[in-house]
Amino acid sequence: MKKYYAGLDLGGTFVKGGIVDEEGKILVKDKIPTGRERPYTEIAADMARLVKDLAVRADLAEGQLAGVGIGSPGLIDAENGVIVYSNNIRWENVPLCGAVREQLGVPVCITNDANAAALGEHFCGAGKKFGSMVFITLGTGVGGGIILDGKLFEGNRSAGAEIGHMVIERGGWQCTCGRRGCFEAYASATGLIRRTRESMEAHKESAMWKIAGSLEGVDGRTAFDGMRAGDAAAKQVVEEYISCLAEGVTNLVNIFRPEAVVLGGGVCAEGETLLAPLRAAVEPHLFGGAEYAPVAIVAASLGNDAGLCGAARLAMQRAR
Amino acid sequence: MKKYYAGLDLGGTFVKGGIVDEEGKILVKDKIPTGRERPYTEIAADMARLVKDLAVRADLAEGQLAGVGIGSPGLIDAENGVIVYSNNIRWENVPLCGAVREQLGVPVCITNDANAAALGEHFCGAGKKFGSMVFITLGTGVGGGIILDGKLFEGNRSAGAEIGHMVIERGGWQCTCGRRGCFEAYASATGLIRRTRESMEAHKESAMWKIAGSLEGVDGRTAFDGMRAGDAAAKQVVEEYISCLAEGVTNLVNIFRPEAVVLGGGVCAEGETLLAPLRAAVEPHLFGGAEYAPVAIVAASLGNDAGLCGAARLAMQRAR
Repeated sequence: MKKYYAGLDLGGTFVKGGIVDEEGKILVKDKIPTGRERPYTEIAADMARLVKDLAVRADLAEGQLAGVGIGSPGLIDAENGVIVYSNNIRWENVPLCGAVREQLGVPVCITNDANAAALGEHFCGAGKKFGSMVFITLGTGVGGGIILDGKLFEGNRSAGAEIGHMVIERGGWQCTCGRRGCFEAYASATGLIRRTRESMEAHKESAMWKIAGSLEGVDGRTAFDGMRAGDAAAKQVVEEYISCLAEGVTNLVNIFRPEAVVLGGGVCAEGETLLAPLRAAVEPHLFGGAEYAPVAIVAASLGNDAGLCGAARLAMQRAR
Repeated sequence: MKKYYAGLDLGGTFVKGGIVDEEGKILVKDKIPTGRERPYTEIAADMARLVKDLAVRADLAEGQLAGVGIGSPGLIDAENGVIVYSNNIRWENVPLCGAVREQLGVPVCITNDANAAALGEHFCGAGKKFGSMVFITLGTGVGGGIILDGKLFEGNRSAGAEIGHMVIERGGWQCTCGRRGCFEAYASATGLIRRTRESMEAHKESAMWKIAGSLEGVDGRTAFDGMRAGDAAAKQVVEEYISCLAEGVTNLVNIFRPEAVVLGGGVCAEGETLLAPLRAAVEPHLFGGAEYAPVAIVAASLGNDAGLCGAARLAMQRAR
């Protein structure tokens, strides 16, 4: 009897879920509102209902659902299935795995959302061909996931892989974590937006004013669009952004020397406009040379499905 | 029949060797000159002779020597037993393992010298109690070794774990590797000496002049000695040095979240003068808090024996 796994991607607004087979194919998927202000037991019950509903829609027979994986924001105690804390959902020490397992009667495991996305991209996305990879999401913050020998590396009590909070500029930009000069402060979409706004204020003639309408209208695309429109200030913003991104990526490559770096998050929609100069900036600094142990630098390919695919994959790995 | 392993620590000046048992006890040890200007085959023959000689002195019976491990400077292709290149011994693509194995008829394996020292400290030194650790040597450069689940993590083709070349200050001090602002540029003894000299030139009244005699007389102890003598400029040098060291250590802890950070190299002779302020600077920035997943920050304990112990340990792990 073929086995299937449910992946749940818990977010502040929606819970996304899907039923995934052992080849990484998503049979069905759906999402429900998180309702994050409610007690966790209610949210857990809804998550379990979503899994049951998806299992019916995927036409699974009794016993075919072999496990459930959850990707969640926050600090996760994976071993004990507990969300230690999450700013996003305002939880502290929530035993979510146990609460979902009670409703379903199958094993439930959990990891951080960035880890889940990393595992998803490795299982059936851009990282599929590679034995080891560093996954970096460039979003509101910079999240990361590390895959070594096909498995998540999480560090002691799953508190590692916090690559966004690696300082690349001592005493530099203030980070939300309290340190200064973190990779996240520069390489996140938030960092790009900050840099774009600073440049607009310094260059009142810049085409970026027309593109964004106002400082409030700036997003992660503004500088890239400005550069494409031939604006010099915008080009400089993009170059400085990529230079910071390259600094952190080079650090991570020389630490992990993975076979691939997979970049996710909104900024990656720029594709080769971002990736080609990034590769050119990283490769000359690879220890032993880029040819000795090549590192592919590629964009993530699963989009919003990465988290649920990876959560399902985690359940699959645990079941073996 | 009890098994024993030989560890060889290949340096630019000496080859150190020892016979180690499965509990990490060194039965005998010795060293011979490297004679690094000679063909590698001659050096390999001397290394094999050293092992044979040590085995006799340790009274090993035929078949009791179960393997040989080598710690070597440079970029090492561990899988193929080749030194890809070494600045120190000026070698390129030297199949050292094969050359030593031919003479001895037992398995021979190799790793980078910093990796060997890390494994040694983990096997029978300061890292003994810990499942995972980050080893950092503060010497002429900054070397590193990563132990995960009791095993060396080396990255693809052993080109990872280059923690000294993680940039902590974008556009900062020039590093020998070509990048600017590397951890090594600031946290090595070389970086400390540079900072000490810069401070002396800015503070002609500093007690450091008397301690060192001249700029040429400066070493890694000068600023620490000056601080102990009550010199304000020296104190500032030490504080800035430790602050840079803490930046890199914090990065590595948040990336690997190991159970311990073990610091080796000459600067560590300062003991708690170095370690106490380092812990105080690192702990507030640990993801999830220091209590959630504590990280011990300790000095290495094996001194010059770390490399040969670790090399022997590597042979032991390979033999299993």
